[in-house]
Amino acid sequence: MAEKEKVVLAYSGGLDTSVIVKWLQVEKNMDVIAICGNVGQDEKDLSWIKQKALDMGAIASEAVDMREEYAETIVSKAIWANGKYEGIYPLLSALSRPIISKHLVDIAHEYGAKYIAHGCTGKGNDQVRFETSIRALDPSLEIIAPVREWDLTTRDSEMEWAKAHGVPVPTTHKKPYSIDDNLWGRAIECGVLEDTWNEPPADIWTMTKNPEDCPADPETVVIGFEGGLPVSINGEKMSLLDCIIKANEIAGRNGFGRIDMIEDRVVGIKSRECYECPAALLLIQAHQSLETLCLDAETLKQKAKLDVEWASTVYRGLWYSQNREAIDAYNAYTQKYVTGEVRIKLCKGGLFVDGLRSPYSLYDYNLATYDEGDTFDHTASKGFITIHGLQSKTWSRVQGPGSKLQ
Amino acid sequence: MAEKEKVVLAYSGGLDTSVIVKWLQVEKNMDVIAICGNVGQDEKDLSWIKQKALDMGAIASEAVDMREEYAETIVSKAIWANGKYEGIYPLLSALSRPIISKHLVDIAHEYGAKYIAHGCTGKGNDQVRFETSIRALDPSLEIIAPVREWDLTTRDSEMEWAKAHGVPVPTTHKKPYSIDDNLWGRAIECGVLEDTWNEPPADIWTMTKNPEDCPADPETVVIGFEGGLPVSINGEKMSLLDCIIKANEIAGRNGFGRIDMIEDRVVGIKSRECYECPAALLLIQAHQSLETLCLDAETLKQKAKLDVEWASTVYRGLWYSQNREAIDAYNAYTQKYVTGEVRIKLCKGGLFVDGLRSPYSLYDYNLATYDEGDTFDHTASKGFITIHGLQSKTWSRVQGPGSKLQ
Amino acid sequence: MAEKEKVVLAYSGGLDTSVIVKWLQVEKNMDVIAICGNVGQDEKDLSWIKQKALDMGAIASEAVDMREEYAETIVSKAIWANGKYEGIYPLLSALSRPIISKHLVDIAHEYGAKYIAHGCTGKGNDQVRFETSIRALDPSLEIIAPVREWDLTTRDSEMEWAKAHGVPVPTTHKKPYSIDDNLWGRAIECGVLEDTWNEPPADIWTMTKNPEDCPADPETVVIGFEGGLPVSINGEKMSLLDCIIKANEIAGRNGFGRIDMIEDRVVGIKSRECYECPAALLLIQAHQSLETLCLDAETLKQKAKLDVEWASTVYRGLWYSQNREAIDAYNAYTQKYVTGEVRIKLCKGGLFVDGLRSPYSLYDYNLATYDEGDTFDHTASKGFITIHGLQSKTWSRVQGPGSKLQ
Amino acid sequence: MAEKEKVVLAYSGGLDTSVIVKWLQVEKNMDVIAICGNVGQDEKDLSWIKQKALDMGAIASEAVDMREEYAETIVSKAIWANGKYEGIYPLLSALSRPIISKHLVDIAHEYGAKYIAHGCTGKGNDQVRFETSIRALDPSLEIIAPVREWDLTTRDSEMEWAKAHGVPVPTTHKKPYSIDDNLWGRAIECGVLEDTWNEPPADIWTMTKNPEDCPADPETVVIGFEGGLPVSINGEKMSLLDCIIKANEIAGRNGFGRIDMIEDRVVGIKSRECYECPAALLLIQAHQSLETLCLDAETLKQKAKLDVEWASTVYRGLWYSQNREAIDAYNAYTQKYVTGEVRIKLCKGGLFVDGLRSPYSLYDYNLATYDEGDTFDHTASKGFITIHGLQSKTWSRVQGPGSKLQ
Repeated sequence: MAEKEKVVLAYSGGLDTSVIVKWLQVEKNMDVIAICGNVGQDEKDLSWIKQKALDMGAIASEAVDMREEYAETIVSKAIWANGKYEGIYPLLSALSRPIISKHLVDIAHEYGAKYIAHGCTGKGNDQVRFETSIRALDPSLEIIAPVREWDLTTRDSEMEWAKAHGVPVPTTHKKPYSIDDNLWGRAIECGVLEDTWNEPPADIWTMTKNPEDCPADPETVVIGFEGGLPVSINGEKMSLLDCIIKANEIAGRNGFGRIDMIEDRVVGIKSRECYECPAALLLIQAHQSLETLCLDAETLKQKAKLDVEWASTVYRGLWYSQNREAIDAYNAYTQKYVTGEVRIKLCKGGLFVDGLRSPYSLYDYNLATYDEGDTFDHTASKGFITIHGLQSKTWSRVQGPGSKLQ
Repeated sequence: MAEKEKVVLAYSGGLDTSVIVKWLQVEKNMDVIAICGNVGQDEKDLSWIKQKALDMGAIASEAVDMREEYAETIVSKAIWANGKYEGIYPLLSALSRPIISKHLVDIAHEYGAKYIAHGCTGKGNDQVRFETSIRALDPSLEIIAPVREWDLTTRDSEMEWAKAHGVPVPTTHKKPYSIDDNLWGRAIECGVLEDTWNEPPADIWTMTKNPEDCPADPETVVIGFEGGLPVSINGEKMSLLDCIIKANEIAGRNGFGRIDMIEDRVVGIKSRECYECPAALLLIQAHQSLETLCLDAETLKQKAKLDVEWASTVYRGLWYSQNREAIDAYNAYTQKYVTGEVRIKLCKGGLFVDGLRSPYSLYDYNLATYDEGDTFDHTASKGFITIHGLQSKTWSRVQGPGSKLQ
Repeated sequence: MAEKEKVVLAYSGGLDTSVIVKWLQVEKNMDVIAICGNVGQDEKDLSWIKQKALDMGAIASEAVDMREEYAETIVSKAIWANGKYEGIYPLLSALSRPIISKHLVDIAHEYGAKYIAHGCTGKGNDQVRFETSIRALDPSLEIIAPVREWDLTTRDSEMEWAKAHGVPVPTTHKKPYSIDDNLWGRAIECGVLEDTWNEPPADIWTMTKNPEDCPADPETVVIGFEGGLPVSINGEKMSLLDCIIKANEIAGRNGFGRIDMIEDRVVGIKSRECYECPAALLLIQAHQSLETLCLDAETLKQKAKLDVEWASTVYRGLWYSQNREAIDAYNAYTQKYVTGEVRIKLCKGGLFVDGLRSPYSLYDYNLATYDEGDTFDHTASKGFITIHGLQSKTWSRVQGPGSKLQ
Repeated sequence: MAEKEKVVLAYSGGLDTSVIVKWLQVEKNMDVIAICGNVGQDEKDLSWIKQKALDMGAIASEAVDMREEYAETIVSKAIWANGKYEGIYPLLSALSRPIISKHLVDIAHEYGAKYIAHGCTGKGNDQVRFETSIRALDPSLEIIAPVREWDLTTRDSEMEWAKAHGVPVPTTHKKPYSIDDNLWGRAIECGVLEDTWNEPPADIWTMTKNPEDCPADPETVVIGFEGGLPVSINGEKMSLLDCIIKANEIAGRNGFGRIDMIEDRVVGIKSRECYECPAALLLIQAHQSLETLCLDAETLKQKAKLDVEWASTVYRGLWYSQNREAIDAYNAYTQKYVTGEVRIKLCKGGLFVDGLRSPYSLYDYNLATYDEGDTFDHTASKGFITIHGLQSKTWSRVQGPGSKLQ
């Protein structure tokens, strides 16, 4: 008897991927290796998930703690790049897919599997991110996307199939929210949000306290950076992973980090998304403020444009790409001296940066001060302005408001 | 006796420009026309300022209400461009200088004056903005910048000169803050801020309530836009000027609109600046959110980069320039359909956009929904992803992580 | 009997689209309306093409002269934008597809057809351009791409099918070159070029003379522009279409206009392409030179980046898009004063611009001259440089070569 | 007697800097150290220049061969960045100033000099480049620019002063051309060019043969690259410096490398410039072509924009700056695999790239070919196009040509 083909499945323990564990056996006659990645999602204990897959006939199942690697190799670059897609979304799902994909590919190699499967729908971004990442890492692997392929297109038909094939089905009503979360934040989609005029329901938020219920007194936090990355909180040195965990707590309890936005998906449609990203928004804000002290005006302006490109590239699933790596080489240079401290006040959902310092600060007190000690050459300004405005003066005379031709 | 030369002075009523009224007569032997522009600053009644100039020997003095023109011709463009320098500063002083300059030039023409004088120092941005604007509008006018030229470089020497020449001097201590304000916001500089680690003193803020002292209940505001500009607040139609005034009130009483930043000046130095811009930050946020509904992904990405250029151009005093006008032509096109409503919740310094709608919305419920009615072609995704990831797959195989060459 | 569905076919008269005329009848049971657009391709007399379609059973056939409309509404914008994809390719096929698509849609409306068919393969750019253009113009139309769908994947099988169904087949050997041409140039693909190290065969070129065989004496041509568009050649006023025709002649006989390049297709692959575009390269060069006289430094720099975006957008088939229209609004402003004359010398494949003039020139002799008449304020430079270099001086001292920290 | 201050002078041997050697002694009472840098200019033997300075009283004089260092540390980066200001000018003078400045500063340190002097006028770019470079390298050094300061503003007055102070004056008429040259090219300014409609005189060119007088037969040259830099010509390995020298010969004898342009100077004016840069234009063209093979589409598009910024930064004298170094970090990454060969045909001023190959080529024959061996998945295109065009389809229906609202 010919050996069955093996398939590595990105497994979450939820209904969709549980059905897939069975479906791949039944419909594709494959041996399933179910992998559940710990990227810091709310569900901390993944052992039951591992067991659930085995119970449904997976030949192997692993729960892999990717959190530190995720923080160090992926989230770190997002902090450098002040990574926010369309200026708002901190890319939480876009960042986790490349690290999960890397592990799926590694495990496929370990087990000699030629297939990788995921549970993404045919309309979202994550199918794009998984598949481009996997193909970049090993183009010889084939990808199976059962949800795109099967005909279980309604929840009812899926439940029925599950019952018929011994897949445990949720006994409660379908949760009205679709969630993806990891240490960089939490994404919430739900039916009521599909009308862009509807207010997000209060109960969708779990990482951030409702601002109205937060402490009345502001909480001050000091974040220390070295080389563009957080290394301490309130003076206490800690790993990047711990900085993120701590920042989630601090910002979350002060109601900071909620997002409600219209976002342009890779597949050409606009969607309404709610996110809560307390650590991400806090750390990126702190980082960006420190950059204003350590990068000069020309670099800040250039980097602002590259930040837009970086976020767009990563959002579109092109983590493993020449373009992303090239921009990160730029960032590696610029971050060398982004070292120092940022003091931030958080209060009832609001954030206010109120102090910055750096041993590499390009702010020069003696140039800036209006008090004694001023070393700025005031006489230079006259000549500067004459030349600075010469272009627009010439333009105005010939073509603009000063022109006789008009 | 030869007629004296006439000089038009941008006059604020403060000590510096008051000394200049006299200094221009004494040192330059000129006839002074003192102009005080009402651009919506805190000081609403400018009649005493007008009189003060006449008392000190100005041959003419005018208080000009520029508010509506300022809102309609200048601030409107800033809203289109989501105008924030270095992503933060809403350009309040940078925007007022071009409208004031225009009036100074017009009045110089009226009076037959060949000179314009201003009271800016040799180290700030405003000298640059005044002079480039004036030269663009009429290159034949000569500009006098007494503060850059005279030797009254300490407050003491200036006070002494003032007393000696009959210029009324303040009887109180020097205010520790240097302020510039107009309807688009208020800039505060002060000695203690020159150490970037110092927290801004609580008493510098006047347009925004201290967040801790704001109402505990959130206030919801709905801002209506037509063609990229606010036209109503909470359903009440009003002029752009009134929208701004109203927005300052609403945001201000909820503690929203404070900024503390490091900024790169035109003259090549970094400075610490505090601003409060309740209306500017509220209206720009509302506008930017509405754009996410009415502009497509490619345009949003392109416009984000042009917004950076626009703000940089205007900050550097190049309002009257080919480049700014060209970007505004781009904006005029993109804003045509930025029409609709934005619902925003304000609370104790925090802001949260929670609803958007537009008759020209590019959000398509039927494409976005996961419920029945879904018209998105899910089968298209497989082919899309194959081609979308082809570049990075090829790259990876030859040069990247999938390469055997490395 | 139910009426047959009607399909409008983009018909060229070649083997592929001739087989399609019949295939749509046989396999899809449709009535075919064959449309051949004259966009200035080499084949000037299209009446035989029209007849050929009718002979094969098309219910209607039209040869539409789109040349003037193509020049005025499409090519004109490409000249404004100095439209060259990846800095090289003048977009000739990318520009013709939108105008052809527009006519296909209009004709579909006229005849009440619900389908449009084209003969593009599944690997090229043109399928993308046709389909996105048609869907933008009327999303209700369905598109049929027989070559992507059928199983006639080799020339032999296609010839056999043709013979079996009475489609006239070429009696000569397959031409080794695949050509697309219109008044903006000519694209050549052929097997031997698929090795990037092979030299293009000499006989692929038809619009441009072999440089070695061109006249030894240079030919001088003066191109007049108004509002960014050519309006005269050597002093003779003519329409844009005639300027292009004339420019093709002049540049072609001097061997100018050949391109051999590696190009990134929309579908994610690199391909080797040869083009000859005498008029396009001549007129764009002339236009770009005139812009250096009529646009200021900041606008030139900004426009260079937008030109890159414009070309990329149009190349990717997004002519009918918000982004392209927005950039064209920018261009419409900037082109207002791009008026004047450009003198160019052509010789044996080389081009040299050697004279420029414009009534709106921003070149100011009195500022530029080193002779008497110099009005430039030399004393301004010292102050200018002091401030211009202040940022990098500060940076160097703290972080760069002048830093003690390193 | 107090020791005299020492000044290091950038000395060319020409009239201006010769007068300055004496002027610094007479007017500033300084000891002059005259430095003449060999950056590959036409004048190869600099020993007479060295002697001339000593003859006029310089206390020391050195001729420093900077050519190899110039090629390896500066020109190399320009090749990476395809460095052409405003898309045309290969930055020859902008590149040589930083290397000369570095040596001037080093020599000032050696001799304990506190001053550096140069002979640039107050209207050009070079004053900016020298002064910003020197200040970045050592802000404590003071800069003297005699030509900007003295009153010898006409040639007559300068000649008279020279004669009166024993400075040898040219016995021939003033050469009508002002030249700056180095191994990266040659800049020519002259009075007749100040009318933008005048043709450049034939005798200004010395590095490039008149195209009409060049050999009728094309010359083929193969340039080998490693890591983005030329390493061989026609198969012969050589240093970058030798590649440049060789490329100047080859391109020069085929009449290739002339430029006639309008350029925007740092000081806000447009000027007419002629350049001949045979090696620069040949090597940059070869490099840029090879990049199309080794960089993917996204990176090429991004790098095209950064190339614009790089050239602008360097042109404006900001070689020693955070921004230039950051972009070079980006380039260092992208150039890693820009390795391979480029075949170019030169003929009578024309250039034609006709072959490319690279071990790291991203061109994939099997994806590109229309012959057997095609591995491209043609069925993927349909889905790709559906999604690719979805944005513009939605836009068109709501706001564009397909909208009912208009």
